[in-house]
Amino acid sequence: MWPGLATLPWRWAGGAALLLALALEALALARGWRRPPPRREVLFFPSPVTCTAALLGGPGRAPCRCPLPHGDSPLGRLLRRLLSARRSLELCLFAFSSPQLGRAVQLLHRRGVRVRLVTDADYMALRGSQVGRLRQAGIQVRHDHESGYMHHKFAIVDRKMLITGSMNWTTQAIQNNRENVLIVEDAEYVKPFLAEFERIWEEYNPANYTFSPKEVEQK
Amino acid sequence: MWPGLATLPWRWAGGAALLLALALEALALARGWRRPPPRREVLFFPSPVTCTAALLGGPGRAPCRCPLPHGDSPLGRLLRRLLSARRSLELCLFAFSSPQLGRAVQLLHRRGVRVRLVTDADYMALRGSQVGRLRQAGIQVRHDHESGYMHHKFAIVDRKMLITGSMNWTTQAIQNNRENVLIVEDAEYVKPFLAEFERIWEEYNPANYTFSPKEVEQK
Repeated sequence: MWPGLATLPWRWAGGAALLLALALEALALARGWRRPPPRREVLFFPSPVTCTAALLGGPGRAPCRCPLPHGDSPLGRLLRRLLSARRSLELCLFAFSSPQLGRAVQLLHRRGVRVRLVTDADYMALRGSQVGRLRQAGIQVRHDHESGYMHHKFAIVDRKMLITGSMNWTTQAIQNNRENVLIVEDAEYVKPFLAEFERIWEEYNPANYTFSPKEVEQK
Repeated sequence: MWPGLATLPWRWAGGAALLLALALEALALARGWRRPPPRREVLFFPSPVTCTAALLGGPGRAPCRCPLPHGDSPLGRLLRRLLSARRSLELCLFAFSSPQLGRAVQLLHRRGVRVRLVTDADYMALRGSQVGRLRQAGIQVRHDHESGYMHHKFAIVDRKMLITGSMNWTTQAIQNNRENVLIVEDAEYVKPFLAEFERIWEEYNPANYTFSPKEVEQK
């Protein structure tokens, strides 16, 4: 028998399988390099009071000499995640009175990040609320007009990082309460929250308001 | 030249590569079968009011004929996730007054699931709270004794599924508020929440209480 008849298919099959195995390995490695694992982080509060001037001040400023500790804290980490926004920030917050978080949002707005805020009508006018200041700074704000509370407490950074949990953005919550905040990049969570934000944003559009109590009741 | 000298190494290499490629594929598939992807789910509220009798009643009962809709709802899905507990349920809840969720927890307790509940002292005695009933049923309850709120709203099923979000377990929240609840199985979230629960559980151990206001103030 001519040996080529028996050996050539083996050569081809063997070579092809070797190439396939190598290609699969390379693909798996390349996918690992191109897509870093999604960020999954939990912050627990209360947070110790630390100096946030370095995070909220401009670059090249002299180091802050205030007497507060200058180390890491859950609030510091929350601020860093927020301040990583480059393009967009969606905020859906029941109560928002923390001066540090308010400054961070104003800073992002000044840097050109598109900020949109949805909040609860009952809480936005309380003393200490940041909502009026943010509106004055030119940030778009919409609020509920329902009997139930707009009780979400989430933010979405650059349409890819979700920040959500039990914590309202108040100094009381940050410094005194037991609270949790999740930092999430898995699309299974980010996408539905983005859709929920857009749904609420549209529903609270002032163009859709009805000012007749009868009509509101019938809704 | 004896043909074996030239062709045998090719046969071996080819066969080995083929086997390797097949083994790698089989391994990947087997890993996929053995480890289903972690559950990642979001529930948004308010939930339409639906009949939960089928979920909360015993097996073999006649179908409920009440006039409520019998379809799926966010509350129904939350109840199903909770009722999947077989061994343990940790609850860390600021406010707990929902009768349906209370019945689900009592059902799990009767089935032999180890239930532990941490709650906030200011809210547990309010009218409609489920905390007294759960205690009477024999469920272990501990509460905070701090000035800040125990504001978490999470549950951990069988030490592997975390249920957490903005929603207190009240009928007001379920039926009227804009709320979110995440169902999470990723260990990066479940483990820190389990540790937070155990930390709080130990801290609120009645054996550690101090009843002298002076001592409490000094803490």
